Amino acid sequence: MTEFELIDRLRVLMPSNASTQVGPGDDCAVLDLGLADRWLLFKTDAIVEGVHFEVNADPLWIGHKALARCLSDVAAMGGAPSHALVTLGLPRNFDAARVEGVYAGMKRLAERHGVAIAGGETTSNPERMFLSLAVIGTAGRGRCPLRSGAQPGDALFVTGELGDALESGRHLNFEPRLAEGQWLVEHFEIHAMIDLSDGLAGDLKHVLKASHVGAEILADAIPIHPAVRGASEESAEKRSYAPDSRLTKALSEGEDYELLFTLPEGESVRLLDAWQERFPNLRLSCIGKISPGSDLVVRDRDGPRPLTLDGYVHFQKP
Amino acid sequence: MTEFELIDRLRVLMPSNASTQVGPGDDCAVLDLGLADRWLLFKTDAIVEGVHFEVNADPLWIGHKALARCLSDVAAMGGAPSHALVTLGLPRNFDAARVEGVYAGMKRLAERHGVAIAGGETTSNPERMFLSLAVIGTAGRGRCPLRSGAQPGDALFVTGELGDALESGRHLNFEPRLAEGQWLVEHFEIHAMIDLSDGLAGDLKHVLKASHVGAEILADAIPIHPAVRGASEESAEKRSYAPDSRLTKALSEGEDYELLFTLPEGESVRLLDAWQERFPNLRLSCIGKISPGSDLVVRDRDGPRPLTLDGYVHFQKP
Repeated sequence: MTEFELIDRLRVLMPSNASTQVGPGDDCAVLDLGLADRWLLFKTDAIVEGVHFEVNADPLWIGHKALARCLSDVAAMGGAPSHALVTLGLPRNFDAARVEGVYAGMKRLAERHGVAIAGGETTSNPERMFLSLAVIGTAGRGRCPLRSGAQPGDALFVTGELGDALESGRHLNFEPRLAEGQWLVEHFEIHAMIDLSDGLAGDLKHVLKASHVGAEILADAIPIHPAVRGASEESAEKRSYAPDSRLTKALSEGEDYELLFTLPEGESVRLLDAWQERFPNLRLSCIGKISPGSDLVVRDRDGPRPLTLDGYVHFQKP
Repeated sequence: MTEFELIDRLRVLMPSNASTQVGPGDDCAVLDLGLADRWLLFKTDAIVEGVHFEVNADPLWIGHKALARCLSDVAAMGGAPSHALVTLGLPRNFDAARVEGVYAGMKRLAERHGVAIAGGETTSNPERMFLSLAVIGTAGRGRCPLRSGAQPGDALFVTGELGDALESGRHLNFEPRLAEGQWLVEHFEIHAMIDLSDGLAGDLKHVLKASHVGAEILADAIPIHPAVRGASEESAEKRSYAPDSRLTKALSEGEDYELLFTLPEGESVRLLDAWQERFPNLRLSCIGKISPGSDLVVRDRDGPRPLTLDGYVHFQKP
């Protein structure tokens, strides 16, 4: 059973209530607690030693990653995070200085975004460190772009450059796109948005499924990270859908933590101009468009073909 | 290093911000998000297989306990929980039906209290199940009884009957005292409140330390659970402060999840009368009073003596 199959089975066991605007299945839960112009965002996420980071990883970046993953989900809702709680499962014979390093990494990132770390809990997890973060924030009432909002005809955009996050260490030290997400929602009619954790192919499929639409992406428009463009092709597997293993890495390696979003195609030029002005150091790429139906196709020099490659599925990793 | 010593070292690494009314160190974080008459409560807690429950425990009660522990903390703030997120670390070769049982246990309890389970996250924790809950709720603005609010002269009360929670299974199937906590705050001037997880002795010490006060408790007034009163004394260790091993269990076994609170002594009789009317099936006991200074003494037939017995400290358990 994959992670996604299990989650589907568990979803029916999650009761809702009247103040829940968006429950399981989006980047954050969205709650209406009665604030005049804001909705509350609520998110949890965990990273585990040996699964999401190596035993000898720099503790500062372990802490950074744990918090940054949640902040990236808040960014994907166009929201502003405000408070976090830390649940820490500690292995036997833990090194207190190392634990302090993890908290120092969280503190540095939290302070940069005005987030309070308002407490949490420590417990024992004998074999390995388990670091679970809970984050709340707010977003404009009625203005959260959901996974389900993509419409046929929308242009499809992605921030940054993709691939090589695992080998380069960007999966640890990435910067959550909070300013970018808030700015997008404030200035444009963003129909759908998601942060890239499972890889562009996998996360785009989440959007398409939730929105009941398809998409066509242009192979030459995918922003492949320079580290991948310069790499030899020996280390990457060839797949059926495309002869280019660099593209495979950019589409499916995962942990890019960039923003993928859609908006009406007519806004594309205005967006690209304004983006270049506001975020001159972060690439923004139009990589295709949303289509009716449910197919995801990649178009390259040989024409369109179905994209059969998924993002990685966490449970199938060791 | 104990859990509490580590937490003290980590606390300086937790930044605050202007909307944080109460940060680390109380039952919940208390946040002012701008709601006219409510504060937001925010809490996380985790239970771990082999640490907080046995591998073969009934999955319904595992789920129940995970959520109930957080709800008990909300109860200790006089609050009403509204939403929860579940972070689940799954061991290798997990049994999907067992996982569904855990969620069914959470669902049953959540529905009883109008709590939505608004999503969460699954991940891998290869050796054992790790179940972390995040809960938000609200409480009356400016009306949360904190650990730091106890005043000399206050009467000290505890709900329910203490001891034997681990052996009887009450540590799994206890009912969080939500209605009781809300009722107390609504009708009385509750100065300090805490839920009993570490044992009466340990948790009372948290209140005394936070409030910079002492207390005198009456040995004969401690509500010892009938299962302890009827038990032989063979299985309980004798300690220096008191000859009665039953009392030791009631003071220090932990995981009672009852409410311990203080209020002005002059309100005691009115409280006991109103409680009997409102909660006829739940015992309420006045067990002593808050005193100046910092000493915690137990008074029995032989006079007062210092209480040297702590509640259990989690890290010192296997």
